[in-house]
Amino acid sequence: MDIEENKNNLEIILDDSSDLSLNQIRRLLNKMSSSEIAHALESSPPKQRKLLFSLLKTDEEGDVLFELGEEIQQDLVSDISDDELTEAVKELELDEIVDILQNLPEERTKMVLSKMSQIDRKRIEKGLTYPDNTAGGLLNTDVISVRPKNSIEVVIKYLRDQGELPENTDKIFVVNDDNEYLGELAISKIITAIPSMTVREIMETEIAPLYVDQDDKEVATIFERNNLISSPVVNESNQLIGRITIDDVVDVIREDADQNLLGMAGVAEDTFAPPGRAAKTRVFWLTMNLLTAFIASSTINLFQDVLDKIVYLAILMPIVASMGGVAATQTLTIVLRGLTLEQINTSNIRWLFKRELAVSILNGIVLSILVGSVTYIWFQQFTLAILISCALVINLIASVAAGIFVPLILRNFNQDPAIGGSVVVTTVTDVIGFLSFLGLATIYLI
Amino acid sequence: MDIEENKNNLEIILDDSSDLSLNQIRRLLNKMSSSEIAHALESSPPKQRKLLFSLLKTDEEGDVLFELGEEIQQDLVSDISDDELTEAVKELELDEIVDILQNLPEERTKMVLSKMSQIDRKRIEKGLTYPDNTAGGLLNTDVISVRPKNSIEVVIKYLRDQGELPENTDKIFVVNDDNEYLGELAISKIITAIPSMTVREIMETEIAPLYVDQDDKEVATIFERNNLISSPVVNESNQLIGRITIDDVVDVIREDADQNLLGMAGVAEDTFAPPGRAAKTRVFWLTMNLLTAFIASSTINLFQDVLDKIVYLAILMPIVASMGGVAATQTLTIVLRGLTLEQINTSNIRWLFKRELAVSILNGIVLSILVGSVTYIWFQQFTLAILISCALVINLIASVAAGIFVPLILRNFNQDPAIGGSVVVTTVTDVIGFLSFLGLATIYLI
Repeated sequence: MDIEENKNNLEIILDDSSDLSLNQIRRLLNKMSSSEIAHALESSPPKQRKLLFSLLKTDEEGDVLFELGEEIQQDLVSDISDDELTEAVKELELDEIVDILQNLPEERTKMVLSKMSQIDRKRIEKGLTYPDNTAGGLLNTDVISVRPKNSIEVVIKYLRDQGELPENTDKIFVVNDDNEYLGELAISKIITAIPSMTVREIMETEIAPLYVDQDDKEVATIFERNNLISSPVVNESNQLIGRITIDDVVDVIREDADQNLLGMAGVAEDTFAPPGRAAKTRVFWLTMNLLTAFIASSTINLFQDVLDKIVYLAILMPIVASMGGVAATQTLTIVLRGLTLEQINTSNIRWLFKRELAVSILNGIVLSILVGSVTYIWFQQFTLAILISCALVINLIASVAAGIFVPLILRNFNQDPAIGGSVVVTTVTDVIGFLSFLGLATIYLI
Repeated sequence: MDIEENKNNLEIILDDSSDLSLNQIRRLLNKMSSSEIAHALESSPPKQRKLLFSLLKTDEEGDVLFELGEEIQQDLVSDISDDELTEAVKELELDEIVDILQNLPEERTKMVLSKMSQIDRKRIEKGLTYPDNTAGGLLNTDVISVRPKNSIEVVIKYLRDQGELPENTDKIFVVNDDNEYLGELAISKIITAIPSMTVREIMETEIAPLYVDQDDKEVATIFERNNLISSPVVNESNQLIGRITIDDVVDVIREDADQNLLGMAGVAEDTFAPPGRAAKTRVFWLTMNLLTAFIASSTINLFQDVLDKIVYLAILMPIVASMGGVAATQTLTIVLRGLTLEQINTSNIRWLFKRELAVSILNGIVLSILVGSVTYIWFQQFTLAILISCALVINLIASVAAGIFVPLILRNFNQDPAIGGSVVVTTVTDVIGFLSFLGLATIYLI
């Protein structure tokens, strides 16, 4: 089977204990598709990655570069000469070239552009003006368009003359003489239509085109809700300027879902980023956490007296803080996911808050009985057991407020609510946890 | 614009302060597509959701049910009668019916099946035998197949006779007289080919079909790597039994990415699940965290003497534990993501471990200088500042071991490494954090 075989190729290449000669590796790479090579590069530590990339043929380099994540793409591009880069991207489609060039320093982009034909240069320069996270940043210019007055027979003849159709062509588009978008025409409809009918008679005009400056997440939602393969993109004058295809949208969906996971932990690097870069992306939230940990410590500091008198309070206090942290992260996760899926809005946030409160009270009852019992068995002190149970319930309620309002407030200030959200919410639960437990102890135990 | 308008519909419906009559809501729902109605239902609290669903026409209910997530789908289905359910699913495609029926209690499935024609029943029963997370669980049976000896002209005539082609039909399949898969034929190729050529001459035979029992994540990877719209599925005898389309694969990708995020926090419910259910899904990991928090407390308990003598150790000890927890979660996140993307394997895990160690040492240096300085300024004790710095470095190194090995060990035991991973790794860093800080203090401060 083809796929199994390629998997083996990948594993052989990645296995650094195997003693393959460079020629053997080169032969293996020749058998792999560009997306498989890209995956092999992304699964390799930096040094090995550079070696593998250097073994590729120049005409393969462009395809592989396009398939790579932004960070690794930039790394590898920065290692090759302008001439090699120009050669590598030469065979790519214009939007793929745009994708690679937009991450380069301006100097290099100009250099590469200067080596292209004027028509290509103009079109690429146009492509470079669209922001990365908009419909414009995703669009391909490889559209096929026909006129409403054309007969299906003429359209079929026209398509036949094209030879091969661009990848993921499930529909062509209908425009007027000014290239204004009028409607779309599914290939499957062309093939099943009566040849003498006109495009106007069978074209679909109900579905709205995408706008060039529409947000890419919105584009992904539209694709998902309507099960699209491709969709036309128009500019502010309703002129057809390109199309977006499902494969680019899948990348947006992946990245979108990734962002919550990585953001919450405060990491933002490739799996195999070099240590210096990885350390740099992570140290910010570690430092933030250090500052917030000192805030939590100052809270404890307020209760030196009671800690001095009753040493086992120090033993138990992390429990209340830690439970609040886990509960707050649970609420935060639900809110972040709801925001990403666009399920949360002003009309239902109140219900969500009440639901989370109910959850924290329900779980608070179960857990406070547990924590109280274990504490009583351990320290044989009834008051202490009651105190830690109460502190836990207080902190679980605080965790709801933190888990719901921190992401909403961050989003209100146009910050990504996923990034560092968990550091902020656990600070709240640490402070409230120490405050409630040690505070209650000060009142009732001394 | 169509989309904007629907968005408004959605917001109007969800806004519980608006005083719409039931008829007004009904009219709004009529204007929305089934996927938009499904999104509205998923964005509604349970009561409102049931009301909205009850306003749908029976023939719309089936389409909407199919678009819903499993949990909400089950909820709504359990509220309607067998007759209504049969009526609702009647117009759906067979694989869509399978999707809904497979989540029902056996009794109800039988009841609904008994009301169908024998042919449909047989095919649905076959569909129900495929596990949910395999290619079989994703497949549609709406394939169009032709024979290799057919001419393109005959194929086009055949397609024309079909009238409309099934959704997402970018290719048809070539089989022999025993329905064994031979190759595929892109619609765009049919349209551009010379009509007198035969299927055999232009069919694509290089691409391997999917196997019915292939893992659904593997299917998603194949679709992503090869930018597929649809792919044939064969059984163990290489017979064509259906096809998988990109829209179902996008759902797998979404769920896959979701799983890491939700699993790490120990939540597993819908955004608007009722409080009882939400509490139930979360209490397990809260209880686990309680047990592990007691383990951390027992560690502190070992150091009662030193805590009794030097009270500010209790103030500082949560800092070391908390920093280790954040660092471990960062490493864990990178490993989980690498495992999901199938980037991590035996050949590069050693490099990854070394990289993480280097990161923790680099960040350890920066952070220990910070923590030492603040501690010195706060408590004016040089030895204490050195001790907390050393404890922090030790705990950051421990965080690497926890963040890398916990998910790998979980996966080795065939457990989902995402679920509860963060509770386990933070236990490790809590214990090592308290042990190193209080241990060093015992040695050097008293």
